[in-house]
Amino acid sequence: MFDYKLLAALAAVIEQAGFERAAQALGLSQSAVSQRIKLLEARVGQPVLLRGAPPQPTELGQRLLNHVQQVRLLERDLQGQVPELDENRLPERLRIALNADSLLTWWTAAVAPFCIANRVLIDHVLEDQDVALKRMRAGEVAACVCAVERPLAGARSLFLGAMRYRALASPAFIDRYLAGKAGPQALLQAPAIVFGPDDQLQHRYLASLGLTGAFAHHLCPSSEGFVRLMENDMGWGLVPELQVQNELRSGALRDVSSGQPIDVPLYWHHWRNGGELLAELTGYLSRSAGRWLIQAGG
Amino acid sequence: MFDYKLLAALAAVIEQAGFERAAQALGLSQSAVSQRIKLLEARVGQPVLLRGAPPQPTELGQRLLNHVQQVRLLERDLQGQVPELDENRLPERLRIALNADSLLTWWTAAVAPFCIANRVLIDHVLEDQDVALKRMRAGEVAACVCAVERPLAGARSLFLGAMRYRALASPAFIDRYLAGKAGPQALLQAPAIVFGPDDQLQHRYLASLGLTGAFAHHLCPSSEGFVRLMENDMGWGLVPELQVQNELRSGALRDVSSGQPIDVPLYWHHWRNGGELLAELTGYLSRSAGRWLIQAGG
Repeated sequence: MFDYKLLAALAAVIEQAGFERAAQALGLSQSAVSQRIKLLEARVGQPVLLRGAPPQPTELGQRLLNHVQQVRLLERDLQGQVPELDENRLPERLRIALNADSLLTWWTAAVAPFCIANRVLIDHVLEDQDVALKRMRAGEVAACVCAVERPLAGARSLFLGAMRYRALASPAFIDRYLAGKAGPQALLQAPAIVFGPDDQLQHRYLASLGLTGAFAHHLCPSSEGFVRLMENDMGWGLVPELQVQNELRSGALRDVSSGQPIDVPLYWHHWRNGGELLAELTGYLSRSAGRWLIQAGG
Repeated sequence: MFDYKLLAALAAVIEQAGFERAAQALGLSQSAVSQRIKLLEARVGQPVLLRGAPPQPTELGQRLLNHVQQVRLLERDLQGQVPELDENRLPERLRIALNADSLLTWWTAAVAPFCIANRVLIDHVLEDQDVALKRMRAGEVAACVCAVERPLAGARSLFLGAMRYRALASPAFIDRYLAGKAGPQALLQAPAIVFGPDDQLQHRYLASLGLTGAFAHHLCPSSEGFVRLMENDMGWGLVPELQVQNELRSGALRDVSSGQPIDVPLYWHHWRNGGELLAELTGYLSRSAGRWLIQAGG
């Protein structure tokens, strides 16, 4: 069998984002952690880590992490029956990738009762809904929320529902940039807000209006920060309806054009052999998420 | 002089987080971007990028990016006088690193009037307040908000004020984990919420109560998600007073112990030769930030 002391050192360096904190988490000296990584690299015959701040796994390192993640999920089940097996017993912990908009709108209310009842701790990893699956492929998470349906080998996907996005801005912004201009062209001249390089929602919305090409935009990788920029008249952007129900009611934010809303489907991806806790959370989510997400098409 | 076509390719690959998007942004083919990077590496005699998803700069790559950032700021001044100098004239753009809590509470309102009046677009880069300076050192940003006072060589720092953090939880959480327990020890048994590996506020708060050692915690790298977890009774944590004024007034969140609040000083770091626009923004911030941040010591 593999030497799991070495693999655990690799996982700690990545999860703690550094050798010093990995050593603290493992209760080892920093040089002991370094030695374990070196020994692991000597065994596999190539680097598993790119030394940087923070360290990054190599492609082989990612495959090893992926394996560690799955072994951990399996261990959890066994622990329920044979608790003394684990040398350093810790509370149950699930690492999950999801988009910031989900975290803010439906996720917490949908999972909190399950986490409290089962004493589960969650490590949230934020990732755009179009690419969250790469965190599972990299072996960093036990499950993820993603707009892509197709599951990875060894995993399953479950449709949770869709989030509805609308193109909004403040009344002062609309007055300044859009009011009185004919057609949607004016949108290309008005500053937009984009979450980050993976966020294509604004591009997709403009394309749906027949508008292509570059457009001026702020970048703001925070869902609430995004809405704050809009409230302060700095730009227009696509926001989940769920997040701005108050602002829509009060008129603080309004539609920037007559364009259609964009519905983004969300799928729950989880390892097939991910253990009982993950299976129970999956069952729980399949029942709870529908309270917030749109179930029927369009 | 350096070949800035090559350096611009490097900057685009990092800023766009990939070769394909860098090519789009530069209006080049992907292989042209690859060739420029290879040529740059041949010139400097070592790698400037670690090929990954996303690509990361090497140490030398970071020094080159740092240089590009400063040259761009200088170019901006000249453009004001000689606009035709730039081949692809784009709107003014500043890349700024700051902590998510600042973005949500005071930042947007403090800079929006300046950005609107000067037609400035902002790329927000989120980074913990204890380590944001590393983004400047890496040449990724023109300025940053950081809790560390000491400026980098070639830069200046300006005290903006302090953010006050309080240790809070929901009444149901306090009832479940803390009520009726003598002394602060119970806090170690109650799940905490931690923003990410760089967030030491909860550790510092526990240490101020004489509590050390490991404690169970969720990880949640989103300021608003953090508060959502608290509202759903999942954990306690340190939150900026500015962010939860309504929740404190309504009683939805309460102090978890009699411990003191923690004041985190915030400094504005900016390149000394960063150009006029950055100097004007600095002047503007020095006047506006005080409306939200605490000016006097503790």
